[in-house]
Amino acid sequence: MVDEQRKEKGDTRVPPGLVRFELLHEDTGTKARRGRLHTPHGPIETPIFMPVGTVGSVKGVGPDDLVNLDAQIILGNTYHLMLRPGEPLIQEMGGLHRFISWDRPMLTDSGGFQVFSLSEKRKITEEGAAFQSHLDGSRHSLSPERSIAIQETLGADVIMAFDECPPSTEDRPYLEKSLARTTRWLHRCVKAWSRERSSLFGIVQGGLHEDLRKRHAEEICAVDLPGYALGGYSVGEAPEAMHAGVAYSAPLLPRDRPRYLMGVGTPLDLVTCVEQGVDMFDCVLPTRCARNGLLFTSEGKLVIRNAAYAKDPRPVDPTCSCYTCRTFSRAYLRHLFAAGEILAMRLNTLHNLHYFLTLMADVRRAISEDRFASFAKDFRARAHAQEAERTRGR
Amino acid sequence: MVDEQRKEKGDTRVPPGLVRFELLHEDTGTKARRGRLHTPHGPIETPIFMPVGTVGSVKGVGPDDLVNLDAQIILGNTYHLMLRPGEPLIQEMGGLHRFISWDRPMLTDSGGFQVFSLSEKRKITEEGAAFQSHLDGSRHSLSPERSIAIQETLGADVIMAFDECPPSTEDRPYLEKSLARTTRWLHRCVKAWSRERSSLFGIVQGGLHEDLRKRHAEEICAVDLPGYALGGYSVGEAPEAMHAGVAYSAPLLPRDRPRYLMGVGTPLDLVTCVEQGVDMFDCVLPTRCARNGLLFTSEGKLVIRNAAYAKDPRPVDPTCSCYTCRTFSRAYLRHLFAAGEILAMRLNTLHNLHYFLTLMADVRRAISEDRFASFAKDFRARAHAQEAERTRGR
Repeated sequence: MVDEQRKEKGDTRVPPGLVRFELLHEDTGTKARRGRLHTPHGPIETPIFMPVGTVGSVKGVGPDDLVNLDAQIILGNTYHLMLRPGEPLIQEMGGLHRFISWDRPMLTDSGGFQVFSLSEKRKITEEGAAFQSHLDGSRHSLSPERSIAIQETLGADVIMAFDECPPSTEDRPYLEKSLARTTRWLHRCVKAWSRERSSLFGIVQGGLHEDLRKRHAEEICAVDLPGYALGGYSVGEAPEAMHAGVAYSAPLLPRDRPRYLMGVGTPLDLVTCVEQGVDMFDCVLPTRCARNGLLFTSEGKLVIRNAAYAKDPRPVDPTCSCYTCRTFSRAYLRHLFAAGEILAMRLNTLHNLHYFLTLMADVRRAISEDRFASFAKDFRARAHAQEAERTRGR
Repeated sequence: MVDEQRKEKGDTRVPPGLVRFELLHEDTGTKARRGRLHTPHGPIETPIFMPVGTVGSVKGVGPDDLVNLDAQIILGNTYHLMLRPGEPLIQEMGGLHRFISWDRPMLTDSGGFQVFSLSEKRKITEEGAAFQSHLDGSRHSLSPERSIAIQETLGADVIMAFDECPPSTEDRPYLEKSLARTTRWLHRCVKAWSRERSSLFGIVQGGLHEDLRKRHAEEICAVDLPGYALGGYSVGEAPEAMHAGVAYSAPLLPRDRPRYLMGVGTPLDLVTCVEQGVDMFDCVLPTRCARNGLLFTSEGKLVIRNAAYAKDPRPVDPTCSCYTCRTFSRAYLRHLFAAGEILAMRLNTLHNLHYFLTLMADVRRAISEDRFASFAKDFRARAHAQEAERTRGR
């Protein structure tokens, strides 16, 4: 019904130069959607997983690797980049795309989440957030206006509204106050937004409270924007609770705009939330796990340091076509990891990113071929069987 | 005159299957030589620089990168590999080439140098060396027979004799005793050597004592081997002392066999020692410096963390064609290094290896075209001017 409200206003188009979402196909058996997001740096096929390039690099791999992996879009973190090297320097170097040598689409977050999760001595007021850098304790501030200004300076194709992501443990009165403020902050973001090159997405919060999600979705989606996101999931709740929450709140977002589930998630999360109509995901999981030696495979998770792999001549995943699996044995990867070699992190990262990106390509194909319901069912059954196996194996 | 001794014996050929050195051209103005070492894994054009893959990876880069950089041969360290993962495991995985997915030539050292420089509580006797691992204190031993057995198990194309590399601070009586033992050890190495797949190189020691070098070269080169090395240089002495030492001792090695100067060196060392007739070099310098942010360029050394590069849009070396220089600014590389990103080490390593390998390609061309004397003279003049500039800049 948010859709109807927006349609009534007759403002379903976004200005030229901004991103435009093309809904290619809706799966008949589920809410899954196959789409294409047109951006100033080319199209993105959705549903999509976006690797995270926190401080200007997706850890362990270069832009050449990301192109080889067919990563269509990557994420940059406003909080990290404003602290180091700072957006004035990036501006002087020609913007974030040019600075990091990435000419495909890019998305930046607002910095809000990191202020609340990483920074020290933060203070949140109606104006915004004052905080100290986690790097050197230096004092900084972010507000809706400043976040948009920094993100427009960085020049990503998609920029995010400045919001508060309150801990799910907060009591209801605080949550209501926070949500109302995030809505006011969105209006300030929209006012500050130039609409020139970067497309602003709004963020719906509300934790696991269905009524709060609904009210906030109505408030946020009443503002005509090129896309909308769900924030505040995957922040410690059980996966089942998150899945139920997304199942409820994804359909609250307009059908003709991309739906971005922030900070999610595991392969199972991706498949399950695509089924609920989510189009975009980002998460540090594949890259962070890779650096810790946890590899995602068609047979479940593989902890490469395990002694069982010491003399295992097989690739990490016999069905995988990534460089790591085409070239090296588990035994070699275990050796590199045990020896603390940098190459271990790189090869593991290449594999995990390939797994996530290939999974999403498979997801898109299944939707296009109208067989996503069985794809998701099979995937879930396998994932649960693997998890049971793993738990027994302990 | 060692040449003549060997020729008199009529044993100038090495068995088939082993490496064979083809002397293509001798520079008319210097002692520099252009050669080709034929190995079971293909030919190596000399003079050559060999990147060091200590524990089974050239730190930060994969075999695909090394092929792209046109690295013709890499080095593996017997000491590191025998401790972790151990040669029985590598044997079970099909040998070192297969284990690390490298199908070009490879050389392993004997482990001797690391026993003397890295291990704990080492004890050297006529039999060999007993020592404790620097990793976990576990007890191990190496002898001429055991070093050759491990190296033949690893299966490199070139293997090195087990020797002692005594500190240059040792007194003369100890050095004489050590050299005589290294000669006896070489005879034991030769006896243990199967001659099947790996070609044994002898090592001449003697520090900076000309008479000891001469005597030891005569002893070592009296044994007919596919190649000979100079050990005990670049272990703390001044570069000029090393250059003078190599100028004296390189011509002591047979003209028709490859001459390998172990553990050397800087770009200036390479050019200067090629001029004295050295064919092969290895050193951790380009890779280790890369990880510490020191980059080699046509304009001298560049310390990437320097504030001067914070907003420098130029590549590290405007004349360089490596991926790093083709793609990124000094400003970006400085940012990655300051942020401790893994990608910094990788990009710096790609650049430094490209610099060393391209320098050697230039060296080979200059020799082939009979203009190495002026090449070396110009290179030295530039290097000294850059060093003077750098010192003034401090």
